[in-house]
Amino acid sequence: MRDHFELRDADAMGRIGSLSVPRAGVTVETPALLPVVNPNIQTIEPARLSEEFGADILITNSYIIRKTEELNERALTEGLHEMLGFDGAIMTDSGSFQLAEYGEIDVTTEEILAFQRDIGSDIATPVDIPTPPDVSREQAEEELGVTAEALADAEAFDAGDSEMLLNAPVQGSTYPDLRERAGRQAAETDLDVFPVGAVVPLMNAYRYDDMVEAVLAAKRGLGPAAPVHLFGAGHPMMFALAAACGCDLFDSAAYALMARDGRYLTVRGTEQFEDLDYFPCSCAVCTEHTPDDLRGMDHRAREDLLAEHNLHVSFAEIRRVKQAIRSGNLLELVEVRARGHPAMLDGYRALLDGASDLEREDPVSKGAFFYTSHESARRPEVLRHRERLARLDVPDRVLLTEDGEPNDHDYDAVWRVVPPFGPFPKSLSDTYPLTAEVPERVDTAAQRAAAEGVAELAEAHPEASLTLSHDGWPAHVLEAVPESVTVETLPKAREREE
Amino acid sequence: MRDHFELRDADAMGRIGSLSVPRAGVTVETPALLPVVNPNIQTIEPARLSEEFGADILITNSYIIRKTEELNERALTEGLHEMLGFDGAIMTDSGSFQLAEYGEIDVTTEEILAFQRDIGSDIATPVDIPTPPDVSREQAEEELGVTAEALADAEAFDAGDSEMLLNAPVQGSTYPDLRERAGRQAAETDLDVFPVGAVVPLMNAYRYDDMVEAVLAAKRGLGPAAPVHLFGAGHPMMFALAAACGCDLFDSAAYALMARDGRYLTVRGTEQFEDLDYFPCSCAVCTEHTPDDLRGMDHRAREDLLAEHNLHVSFAEIRRVKQAIRSGNLLELVEVRARGHPAMLDGYRALLDGASDLEREDPVSKGAFFYTSHESARRPEVLRHRERLARLDVPDRVLLTEDGEPNDHDYDAVWRVVPPFGPFPKSLSDTYPLTAEVPERVDTAAQRAAAEGVAELAEAHPEASLTLSHDGWPAHVLEAVPESVTVETLPKAREREE
Ligand SMILES: [Mg+2]
Ligand SMILES: [Mg+2]
Ligand SMILES: [Zn+2]
Ligand SMILES: [Zn+2]
Repeated sequence: MRDHFELRDADAMGRIGSLSVPRAGVTVETPALLPVVNPNIQTIEPARLSEEFGADILITNSYIIRKTEELNERALTEGLHEMLGFDGAIMTDSGSFQLAEYGEIDVTTEEILAFQRDIGSDIATPVDIPTPPDVSREQAEEELGVTAEALADAEAFDAGDSEMLLNAPVQGSTYPDLRERAGRQAAETDLDVFPVGAVVPLMNAYRYDDMVEAVLAAKRGLGPAAPVHLFGAGHPMMFALAAACGCDLFDSAAYALMARDGRYLTVRGTEQFEDLDYFPCSCAVCTEHTPDDLRGMDHRAREDLLAEHNLHVSFAEIRRVKQAIRSGNLLELVEVRARGHPAMLDGYRALLDGASDLEREDPVSKGAFFYTSHESARRPEVLRHRERLARLDVPDRVLLTEDGEPNDHDYDAVWRVVPPFGPFPKSLSDTYPLTAEVPERVDTAAQRAAAEGVAELAEAHPEASLTLSHDGWPAHVLEAVPESVTVETLPKAREREE
Repeated sequence: MRDHFELRDADAMGRIGSLSVPRAGVTVETPALLPVVNPNIQTIEPARLSEEFGADILITNSYIIRKTEELNERALTEGLHEMLGFDGAIMTDSGSFQLAEYGEIDVTTEEILAFQRDIGSDIATPVDIPTPPDVSREQAEEELGVTAEALADAEAFDAGDSEMLLNAPVQGSTYPDLRERAGRQAAETDLDVFPVGAVVPLMNAYRYDDMVEAVLAAKRGLGPAAPVHLFGAGHPMMFALAAACGCDLFDSAAYALMARDGRYLTVRGTEQFEDLDYFPCSCAVCTEHTPDDLRGMDHRAREDLLAEHNLHVSFAEIRRVKQAIRSGNLLELVEVRARGHPAMLDGYRALLDGASDLEREDPVSKGAFFYTSHESARRPEVLRHRERLARLDVPDRVLLTEDGEPNDHDYDAVWRVVPPFGPFPKSLSDTYPLTAEVPERVDTAAQRAAAEGVAELAEAHPEASLTLSHDGWPAHVLEAVPESVTVETLPKAREREE
């Protein structure tokens, strides 16, 4: 455990944590959103970010400040907090983005870290290489070598008695094994915060599945103790998904950039403000104004209101994610968000493909499991129940039934079968997740998962004689049930057929 | 077409309409939410409902006003609008709820309509019988007879020159054929607004599927021209689903009743305020306060803020539903809301079971189709495309492929196959819904729907020789493809297998 980061609650791979930022004298509760403040153009002043939106950390770019004469001077004399008018924690970026964009920059990690220290940054960043997706493996490995050197330079850097924290970016392009290795190497340093880098091109291309794979791989290397920043990720649509992968920090330039382009953020995606007849939001901007009101305003006033709305939506989603972690229903929130766009569904499906990672972190007991889609059948709780089946004591002759206990029988025990979990003894019926709320209109994904539960039980207990009494499962579901199990159809299902 | 109700836009069975309320001199845009104002206890004053929340119609109870001496007098002398301090349209209820609750009331339809007229109601209600769910068919039919008499009394009622509109409630318990008949009979009267009644017990029991069935049945009888009020339905979680079934008016007592009980509404359900550590919402209440702030307040201040939040969320959801109808993505919104609770998924599945009703009303062309769940494979657009396949000209030898056109072939035509739609010729590829956004990680529901499209094509064109080249569909999907179609697996799918 890194001693400046404490975990307080967890759900799926998401968690609520406390990040101590000693130089700022501030503890940031995570998941947290860092608004990006452009040192040249402040759409919403930093003081308002804190007072009106509750931001207790922001991020700005030390490279731009260093390059801009007037800012450079002011930052060095006044200090960053005074210059921006912000009391909370300030993270600074290093120019790596400019490096990726323009091919070279005129500063070393040591120089830029010294500058960040001197202007009063609370969390500073070395000059890593944000390798884009889909490059050759050779390029990704080579650039990872350079990033590793930047991390070594950062470790060697003398922050004096500033207590400044240091970022250790994790790169590796779209190679999961490189991301994992990079994560492991970063976690072995004594650096403090771990940005997963260069995911912006994936998000811009709606490649949420590839983003999830990159994050899960980085997390496997980093381990659960590291505070993880999904660098450049600011769209509220993906906060829940990314938090469920274990991301703790997000930063949003989107709120301002999108407002400048007349774009309006929602948890389901991005709208062109011009296309809206109604504001689909409960924030003060959207309650007090109509789209027509904004159309009648000058450009600057409209941009400010759109930026305010974009921030309200983003911070509300962060609170929603935190509440979901507290309530133990983060995956239920991800289920909802996954329906915002087909690419988000791909992202959720990719998260479920990483179910073994998920299962390792996911708490054993929570409030209630809601089955709300075919994807729910692949949640870690379903897999965990199936594994538990192998360890249960099983009497000789057991009826596994989707109905109640028959009035008259000579089984040694009657166990209920509930899709998607499969069979379980009465003694477990009040335990999580078997208290699940499931739809009445069952689907084949749930039935298939239940059938696989029956198979697991049969295979782990070949000595038991099992009878399955199902409520009309189709043939391709029953295929999963081994031959050793006697299968019968419940009378109510036979009646429905007739 | 009823001349006081005009339809302006439509999506699924949802629509944007204008309800003229001549006595109030107000036109109400639908879908609209009517806050319920208790004439004795006003949680939020009606003037604030209009100014701060944009309510242009509300509902109150004329039976309670008539029974309460002081209110009775004031309403008769000042008039209802003056008494409540509300300029918009006012609908009044009749005491039917009290009848259902206490078995009898001391007023006839004629008397209560006269009272409603005399106090200045804009839309009045006769004394119908809100038959609860699951009663015997005999009871449901008998009570429907009494409701029919109330409608006849209302038709015969002389509103003078008041221009007061009249409600024609549609009952029938959980018998779809009775709901349909009741709807048809109500539509044949010259009454004005059509509440679907007695659905509150269904909603309270989370029986959203039964609610959808009741509404779809009533709508089949009422036809598209009637303005439909889902009476007693005030939870924002189900506005999108109910609007997609064709409901135009909702009323919310929930915002106030729930606040009194310390309950906090969201579009995903209801939270106990006491259980919240964070406010998962962007409204002014939730941005400016934390749950701990509210815990420190006196009971009345807290109740007011919860009621405000509840209203903000409810009105925002109404705007979201309207925007979705305008944008042609109401079913995409229903997809999202269906993941709020397993019972909501049942409701959505029930709506899709009514796909033929849906298909009749759903516009032929919209913005973009998002495939976001297995349920998307059952949307009306998928069925409509399948029906269109039967009417297309088909060359002699056609390759239907999930891949691009092969470099070298001697088919007469190559058509793409896209799950969930199935095959289509190039000429249609830029038309709705074939411009759909679909996930990369295809599911078997989409594949199965596509296979059924292939089957439809083959059956309608037995003379054509069809070859299907699929990307690794499983056996239970391929079962849907008739023997007459040559089936081959794409090389890329075979490679994945290896
Ligand atoms: Mg992809
Ligand atoms: Mg039911
Ligand atoms: Zn807003
Ligand atoms: Zn709120």
